[in-house]
Amino acid sequence: MKALVYHGAGKKALEDRAQPDHRAPGDAIVKITKTTICGTDLHILRGDVATCAPGRILGHEGVGVVDSVGAGVTAVRPGDRVLISCISACGKCEYCRRGMYSHCTTGGWILGNAIDGTQAEYVRIPHADTSLYPIPAQADEEALVMLSDILPTGFECGVLNGKVEPGATVAIVGAGPIGPAALLTAQFYSPAEIIMIDLDDHRLDVAQRFGATQTINSKHGNAAENVKALTAGRGVDTAIEAVGVPATFLLCEDLVAPGGIIANIGVHGTKVDLHLERLWCQNIAITTRLVDTVTTPMLLKTVQSKKIDPKRLITHRFRLDKILDAYETFEHAASTGALKVIIEA
Amino acid sequence: MKALVYHGAGKKALEDRAQPDHRAPGDAIVKITKTTICGTDLHILRGDVATCAPGRILGHEGVGVVDSVGAGVTAVRPGDRVLISCISACGKCEYCRRGMYSHCTTGGWILGNAIDGTQAEYVRIPHADTSLYPIPAQADEEALVMLSDILPTGFECGVLNGKVEPGATVAIVGAGPIGPAALLTAQFYSPAEIIMIDLDDHRLDVAQRFGATQTINSKHGNAAENVKALTAGRGVDTAIEAVGVPATFLLCEDLVAPGGIIANIGVHGTKVDLHLERLWCQNIAITTRLVDTVTTPMLLKTVQSKKIDPKRLITHRFRLDKILDAYETFEHAASTGALKVIIEA
Amino acid sequence: MKALVYHGAGKKALEDRAQPDHRAPGDAIVKITKTTICGTDLHILRGDVATCAPGRILGHEGVGVVDSVGAGVTAVRPGDRVLISCISACGKCEYCRRGMYSHCTTGGWILGNAIDGTQAEYVRIPHADTSLYPIPAQADEEALVMLSDILPTGFECGVLNGKVEPGATVAIVGAGPIGPAALLTAQFYSPAEIIMIDLDDHRLDVAQRFGATQTINSKHGNAAENVKALTAGRGVDTAIEAVGVPATFLLCEDLVAPGGIIANIGVHGTKVDLHLERLWCQNIAITTRLVDTVTTPMLLKTVQSKKIDPKRLITHRFRLDKILDAYETFEHAASTGALKVIIEA
Amino acid sequence: MKALVYHGAGKKALEDRAQPDHRAPGDAIVKITKTTICGTDLHILRGDVATCAPGRILGHEGVGVVDSVGAGVTAVRPGDRVLISCISACGKCEYCRRGMYSHCTTGGWILGNAIDGTQAEYVRIPHADTSLYPIPAQADEEALVMLSDILPTGFECGVLNGKVEPGATVAIVGAGPIGPAALLTAQFYSPAEIIMIDLDDHRLDVAQRFGATQTINSKHGNAAENVKALTAGRGVDTAIEAVGVPATFLLCEDLVAPGGIIANIGVHGTKVDLHLERLWCQNIAITTRLVDTVTTPMLLKTVQSKKIDPKRLITHRFRLDKILDAYETFEHAASTGALKVIIEA
Repeated sequence: MKALVYHGAGKKALEDRAQPDHRAPGDAIVKITKTTICGTDLHILRGDVATCAPGRILGHEGVGVVDSVGAGVTAVRPGDRVLISCISACGKCEYCRRGMYSHCTTGGWILGNAIDGTQAEYVRIPHADTSLYPIPAQADEEALVMLSDILPTGFECGVLNGKVEPGATVAIVGAGPIGPAALLTAQFYSPAEIIMIDLDDHRLDVAQRFGATQTINSKHGNAAENVKALTAGRGVDTAIEAVGVPATFLLCEDLVAPGGIIANIGVHGTKVDLHLERLWCQNIAITTRLVDTVTTPMLLKTVQSKKIDPKRLITHRFRLDKILDAYETFEHAASTGALKVIIEA
Repeated sequence: MKALVYHGAGKKALEDRAQPDHRAPGDAIVKITKTTICGTDLHILRGDVATCAPGRILGHEGVGVVDSVGAGVTAVRPGDRVLISCISACGKCEYCRRGMYSHCTTGGWILGNAIDGTQAEYVRIPHADTSLYPIPAQADEEALVMLSDILPTGFECGVLNGKVEPGATVAIVGAGPIGPAALLTAQFYSPAEIIMIDLDDHRLDVAQRFGATQTINSKHGNAAENVKALTAGRGVDTAIEAVGVPATFLLCEDLVAPGGIIANIGVHGTKVDLHLERLWCQNIAITTRLVDTVTTPMLLKTVQSKKIDPKRLITHRFRLDKILDAYETFEHAASTGALKVIIEA
Repeated sequence: MKALVYHGAGKKALEDRAQPDHRAPGDAIVKITKTTICGTDLHILRGDVATCAPGRILGHEGVGVVDSVGAGVTAVRPGDRVLISCISACGKCEYCRRGMYSHCTTGGWILGNAIDGTQAEYVRIPHADTSLYPIPAQADEEALVMLSDILPTGFECGVLNGKVEPGATVAIVGAGPIGPAALLTAQFYSPAEIIMIDLDDHRLDVAQRFGATQTINSKHGNAAENVKALTAGRGVDTAIEAVGVPATFLLCEDLVAPGGIIANIGVHGTKVDLHLERLWCQNIAITTRLVDTVTTPMLLKTVQSKKIDPKRLITHRFRLDKILDAYETFEHAASTGALKVIIEA
Repeated sequence: MKALVYHGAGKKALEDRAQPDHRAPGDAIVKITKTTICGTDLHILRGDVATCAPGRILGHEGVGVVDSVGAGVTAVRPGDRVLISCISACGKCEYCRRGMYSHCTTGGWILGNAIDGTQAEYVRIPHADTSLYPIPAQADEEALVMLSDILPTGFECGVLNGKVEPGATVAIVGAGPIGPAALLTAQFYSPAEIIMIDLDDHRLDVAQRFGATQTINSKHGNAAENVKALTAGRGVDTAIEAVGVPATFLLCEDLVAPGGIIANIGVHGTKVDLHLERLWCQNIAITTRLVDTVTTPMLLKTVQSKKIDPKRLITHRFRLDKILDAYETFEHAASTGALKVIIEA
């Protein structure tokens, strides 16, 4: 089968690989219909993710059709159309029982990382019963690819951790593509203001179309002052960090109102300064989270009932044999305007 | 009247001052019966608290008897024995309505800071209706002095923010005297383990008597390893920072388990390193809080029903004319073993 | 001044009455600009509300301008445009501190009940600081009349108590006018389905325009079966009772899914059968609540940011001297289609 | 093997039965070490539980040793000592994912009800990975038998649903044996008062030894008045119904304070009167719940850390061949003083 394989920092190739075999009774083999590329795949390709060894098939998102299941699988059957969660969850360990699938002792984020992933014609999904979600009959598969990772990440790490409420003020630092996922799902809770902050005017335009009530280009260096001006000097109830560098986290420290929350989504590669000499008495919370995908059933309902249209995140489409072009387009988002790219297998 | 007056960094004096006058209809004048000294008073005396100007009478804790009330006061009357909250709350502003009295727009922590405080024979309490608590008939006044600040601080900033639960593991970094206040109130929730960490063996002994299930002297530099060993390698569900320096906050970053909480109580004078490169995916929360004293009614009930004995925090007693000795004893806690000192006015 | 006065069961009159005087330092006298009629006023007029004595000026909703304030009032000043809460809250008692203003020991629902109300040119508002809300500069006064009672009632008793969530299914039993208030505010949380159930097709049409995704006329007697059919046999996550008679509460018992909530808003005059022989193992909750109006600040923000348009509830307008016509219209809602009527003073 | 078999209303026998066989890859066969009798077993024997057909081996509690496991089982192995949950949970269905194991679509309370149970030498446990809990090395097996059903039931349905808090007042109606389970676990949260109400003075004495701060014998008919007297006229924050008849539920309606909760544990066989004409405005909640046993891991930690001693519930011990005597003793609790009886297999 065709597969996109990581070969060490800076190297990837579209190759022929053997189809995956079953290894445990809880496995399913899924024939991929559609997959996509995540910013984390780019992290891997920069050599930043130590758990991902050369030779690995990348990809942790996608929808497909169940090809075969192991003896222990009861929730899905061959022929079922399924949504693949980026998080593999055994459903049995202490973390899974607490709804913290991201820290499943035999799962978590392993797909396209510690085991072969979804940027291929077939993928082996361990813990299939609790890591695959049957796709409702009339559902749009493309839309559901957004539920593998990006929407639950924006929703769980940004919106739920950020406790977005009716009438609240929210700032999202970082406009693509995880920021827009937070932006779309934040609107489930009817906040009064959602202020999107980024360096790229095009992305800010997109954010405005997606529902941002205000946009600020932070290249002018006074984003914090602007946010204070928009919030009667108080700052925001929820500041969502959707970039992952010290400058954007520091901006969130400057933006957050007393009693507010900084909900971190960004994947950070270095420490940041936490200004406790100022924040110790500000009654704030800072949260971090690797997505658990525990809200996938809820998100499926919101998609089915048209409370959200995840397809708005999709900007480009490619066939699997053109996946190198897809990477090219996704990597150069500033010039291509890419948010999410669909790859049809 | 006699009053302990701050005269700039390093300078204080016991002086004769005029009794306080009413300034607003919501004021009460309270004749102090008992007060105490807080670590924050020492911060002021080091010149670290910019809002506290020379000439200020210090102190934000105490119990007393209402001497007179303004026209707008309805909840207390002259002659009532009252507990004074360290936080003055109007009960009307947006923050007060949200239970965030610490950020009351016309109050907050002003007593013994922006206005004259309780280390005197009389004190003016603004917003008396929502800043004083009638003392139940049989209550022990000394015990209730602990409810002005230290117990609600340990409870709200440490235990409640830290979401201590039955069966959970808790580490408290810093054994005195705010750490022990967190230790006493953490036991309301029956955690499985409460590990107290400090540099002072005497304070660790006290912590053990107060209910710590484990104690660790961190001077040996391997506190984090010890905690991991005590928690099957996971770390603690709740790490309470009760010191306020970078080293102790960093220790909390090392101690906290995936899914856990770092509840900061410490008053920090400098920024700290936040290791998001490691913590971004650990599903943790970090909370900060200036005490709101919204739990004072709850704490009063726990004291009255003997679920907690706050007098255990009291190590020394002085009369007001010996308050300089009280400061001496409190400042040199390492040698005197002082936790809280009672000053009788 | 002109005032609508209750004279015992079935009797009311528009009369000349003396303007109200100050009685306590916390009072404000408010010149009414706009008021409205509540279903509860009709309850009083049927003689069902024992706390409301003959001679009482009715009305507990409205907006106006502060005419004068007592010595203890600090949050509003003469000339301020204010929204009057139907609940008077001292902000000081144990219940108020818990956010349960409805049970304020010296307030609660007293306006137009135990003390004279708002269907007059002037009204005395006790506990003015915590019972009046300044109206933002550009705000539409008519819209805000809906925030005195009906919107917070639908929101707090129905939507918040009912824990409406993104993707959830909601049934509202009773389409007017409190049901539509719940319907409008339920949409803050993006539920997948909101099923409105009533006996009146006109009101169901209105509900559909207001955002109901399904409507069921229960006169056919199979509303429960219909709801089960719409919810894959499960029932609804939230059943909001917005009528107050046994039949509608029983319907909610039949509608609610395992793990769901029955949020009662209705004012009941008689006991109901609770089928615990069936429900004891269904993991449900039943909640009751007299509105606390603690969400008024939040609702103000949602109105100001146009997340909700409360004016949609207004169907008729009258001048105060035609208030008897307004009552006539409001009482005969089935023929007039009235939801809320505005009365201009 | 020996097994206690139900033969229709009023009939049971200790018989020889074939050992259970595997039926699904997720099954485990467990050799029972210790089991017990539940009040629900008596309900079955009265013919009140329609889902339990004649020929059924009774029992849904116990500890044992895993004898063999199916191909899909990964969390336990033959030889493991395990605690058997009374609730079988697949861990995969929508209800299980929400932590509502009681409504597992292929499990729930089926043991000793829809499938053969634990009052035998061997039992087949479906969904073994998520329905069995490994027993820690030093743990006392007898104590853990109490974690199969009675302690999680008292805790989840009574204490957690009742939101017991530090300083709160709690009434428990019904002193045995589920009431005492609620009583023991309520103390995890340090309420100020726990008032036990029953008709049996002996059980009230036991309750007092178990930590009740007040006891009331309700045969005198003034229990509600007594509770009001003990709570300054307010009633209790949490009323736990632990009997399951209309009179005791009605008493809870009379006991609950404004803002309080009635947490139902009792298995009701008939409807009750819900006095909404009085309660509609009291801001209360009523909760029902079939135990989910989601707190078993938490309860295991509280037992291991000695925050609770479940053995206090055990009053008698029998060998399996004397199980008819055990039933005799358990059924006549009024004369035998039985709370829980241990049966050794």
